[in-house]
Amino acid sequence: MPVGTAATVKGLTQDALEELGAGIILANTYHLSLRPGHELIRKLGGLHRFMAWPRAILTDSGGFQVFSLSELRKITDTGVTFRSHLDGSEHLLTPEKAVEIQMALGSDIAMVLDECIATPASRDVAEAAMKRTTLWARRARDYFTEKAGRNGDSGAAQWQFGIVQGATFAELRRESARQLLEMDFPGYAVGGLAVGEPHAVTCEMTGEAAALLPRDRPRYLMGVGRPEQIADYVSLGIDMMDCVLPTRAARHACIYTSEGRVLIKNARYAQDERPLDTACSCAVCKRYTRAYLRHLFAAGEITAAILATHHNVHFYLDIMRQIREAIGFGNLAKFSSAMHARYASGPA
Amino acid sequence: MPVGTAATVKGLTQDALEELGAGIILANTYHLSLRPGHELIRKLGGLHRFMAWPRAILTDSGGFQVFSLSELRKITDTGVTFRSHLDGSEHLLTPEKAVEIQMALGSDIAMVLDECIATPASRDVAEAAMKRTTLWARRARDYFTEKAGRNGDSGAAQWQFGIVQGATFAELRRESARQLLEMDFPGYAVGGLAVGEPHAVTCEMTGEAAALLPRDRPRYLMGVGRPEQIADYVSLGIDMMDCVLPTRAARHACIYTSEGRVLIKNARYAQDERPLDTACSCAVCKRYTRAYLRHLFAAGEITAAILATHHNVHFYLDIMRQIREAIGFGNLAKFSSAMHARYASGPA
Repeated sequence: MPVGTAATVKGLTQDALEELGAGIILANTYHLSLRPGHELIRKLGGLHRFMAWPRAILTDSGGFQVFSLSELRKITDTGVTFRSHLDGSEHLLTPEKAVEIQMALGSDIAMVLDECIATPASRDVAEAAMKRTTLWARRARDYFTEKAGRNGDSGAAQWQFGIVQGATFAELRRESARQLLEMDFPGYAVGGLAVGEPHAVTCEMTGEAAALLPRDRPRYLMGVGRPEQIADYVSLGIDMMDCVLPTRAARHACIYTSEGRVLIKNARYAQDERPLDTACSCAVCKRYTRAYLRHLFAAGEITAAILATHHNVHFYLDIMRQIREAIGFGNLAKFSSAMHARYASGPA
Repeated sequence: MPVGTAATVKGLTQDALEELGAGIILANTYHLSLRPGHELIRKLGGLHRFMAWPRAILTDSGGFQVFSLSELRKITDTGVTFRSHLDGSEHLLTPEKAVEIQMALGSDIAMVLDECIATPASRDVAEAAMKRTTLWARRARDYFTEKAGRNGDSGAAQWQFGIVQGATFAELRRESARQLLEMDFPGYAVGGLAVGEPHAVTCEMTGEAAALLPRDRPRYLMGVGRPEQIADYVSLGIDMMDCVLPTRAARHACIYTSEGRVLIKNARYAQDERPLDTACSCAVCKRYTRAYLRHLFAAGEITAAILATHHNVHFYLDIMRQIREAIGFGNLAKFSSAMHARYASGPA
C-alpha cells in the first residue's frame, strides 16, 4: 500500500495512482483528524469522496503517530493524551475515539488503537503494553460492533483489524495473537516491528504471529519494508504491507531498480541515456533518461519528485506482482534470494 | 507558451503537457547553458531528446536573465560579461554565442540577443540600447545564416526571431522594427514591455511595433500576460506569448477561473465541493473539489502544486482556444471586455 498520509500520496495524483494499478492506499488518521479534521471529511462524504479515490483505503488508528510525532504523551488504560504537532492543542485518543474517527473518515479497513513502545524494550514493558493493547482491542471491537449497525453506510461497510504486539518476545507475540483471535477480527496486523531490530528478528516475530493467524483472512505487517525484504514477509504468510520508503526515497533521489538502488544525483549519470531501470515498463522509464532525471534533481525541480515517485511506486507494486507470479510457479524462495543478492551491495 | 525554464514546466510532466494540448513551450537559455550546460545537451541529442518533448520549443537568448538574475554585468558592443547566479563563474555572452548556445540546444525557434534596460528609462538610454540591439541582431543574423548551412540537422531546422526594443518611445519602437525588417527574420518579437508600465502603454508600444511587422509571420510579445490582457495583445496582431504567471501563481495557490482569481487557501473554500472552475473541462476540475485543493495547500503537499498548475495551464491554453473561436465569430472585442470585467475586481 502506497502511503497517503494527508489524503495524498506525495507527488502522485489519483489518476497516476490508478494508472500504476494501486488497489489500496493507506491514509493516516492522526494527520487527517488534526487537519483538515475528520468531522469536515465526514461532512464532505468521507475520505473516498474528499480525495476522489474510489478504490480501497486503509486508515491506521493514529496511535503510532501519537507516539512518534506528538509531545507530552500521557498513557493510561483510558487512552493517550497528547499535544498536536501542528498547534500544541491537547487531545485524548481512546480506543473508542479511534473507532469513531475512522468511521467518520469512512475508510474500508480501520485499525484498532494499540500501544506503541520505544525499542528495544524490556520484557516487563513489552508485556504491559501488549496486555493494554489487548484491553484496548476488546473495547475497540465492542464499540465498533455496537456502532457499525447504526452508523450509516460507511461504518457498516468497514472492516476492523486487530494488531498483534509483544515487541521481540515470541511468547508475548503468541499470547497477543491468541487473545485477538477470540475477538474474531476479519483481518489481523502485526505491529511494532521493523523499528530497529535485525531483519532476522523481524522475520522471527512475524512468523510467530502469522502462524497463529487465520490463513483465510488478510495478515498485514505494518510499516515495512525494503525491496529485498518483502518476499520474506510474504513467505511467512503476510498479505499486506505499507511503507513510505518508495515515496520518501524518491524525493531524496534514491531510485529502486531491478539491479539495486540508484542514487540518481551521482555525477556518473550526467550523460546516461538509459531509463532509470532498463527492465521497467513504467511511464517514466518509457520516456525519460537518467541524465534528465539527474538534471531535474540537481536543479531542485518539483518534476524530479513526481517522476521518481512514479517510478518507485511502480517498482514496489511490481514486486508484489512478481511475488504473486513466483508463488504460482513455486519459486518464491528463488525470487527472494535474487532480490537479496541485488540489494546486498550499496547503492550505485 | 508555458514556461519550462530548466527543461521542465514546474509541476507538469511532458505527458501532462501533451494532454493539456501544449504545442510549444519556452525554455531558458541562460539557465540551461549554466546547468546542465548546452554542450551536454548537444551531446545528448539536443533539448527535444534530452527532455523527451517532441513538440516545439522556443528558447530565449539568455539576455533577459543575464540582466535580471546575474551579478556584475558589464555591457559593451561586444557583448555582456556576467557572473553566474549559481556559482559566481564569469561568462561572456555575445550575439554569436547566444546563437551557438541555442543551436546546441536545438530549439525550433531561437531568439537574438538584445539589450534589456532598467525601466523607466530616459530616451537617451532607450535609444542607445535599441541601437545596440539592432547591431547585435545584425551580427546574430549573419552568424546564424553562416552557421545554419553547416551545423547539421538541428541548426538547419531552426528559425531565428528578431526582437523589437525601444522602451516606451513610439518612435524608437518603429525605428527598431524597420531596422529588423531589413534582416528578413521568419518571425519577430516585441521585448522590454510589461515590466512595470501601465497596460495602456504596453498596448500602445505593442501596437506601434506590430503594425509594422509582417502579418504573415509570427509576432511574439515576450513575457506576458495576465488572463484579461491576452485578448488585447491578440487584437493588436500578437500571435505568441509566454508567461510564468499560470505556473508560478498555481504554486502560490492562486487559481485562474472563468469567474476571476480564486485564492484557494482562503477558509471560505474549506467545505466547497465545487471544482476549481465550474466552467472548466480539465482533468483536475473533473475529479477534485476546492475543499480538497485547499487542504493540500494547507498541508504543504506537492500534489497541490501539481493539480493547481495543471488547471492554470489548461486555463491559459483555453483562453487562446477561446480567442481563436472569438476571431472566427468576429467578436474578439466582446470576449476581451468580458475578461476585463471578470478580472477587474480582486481575487475571491
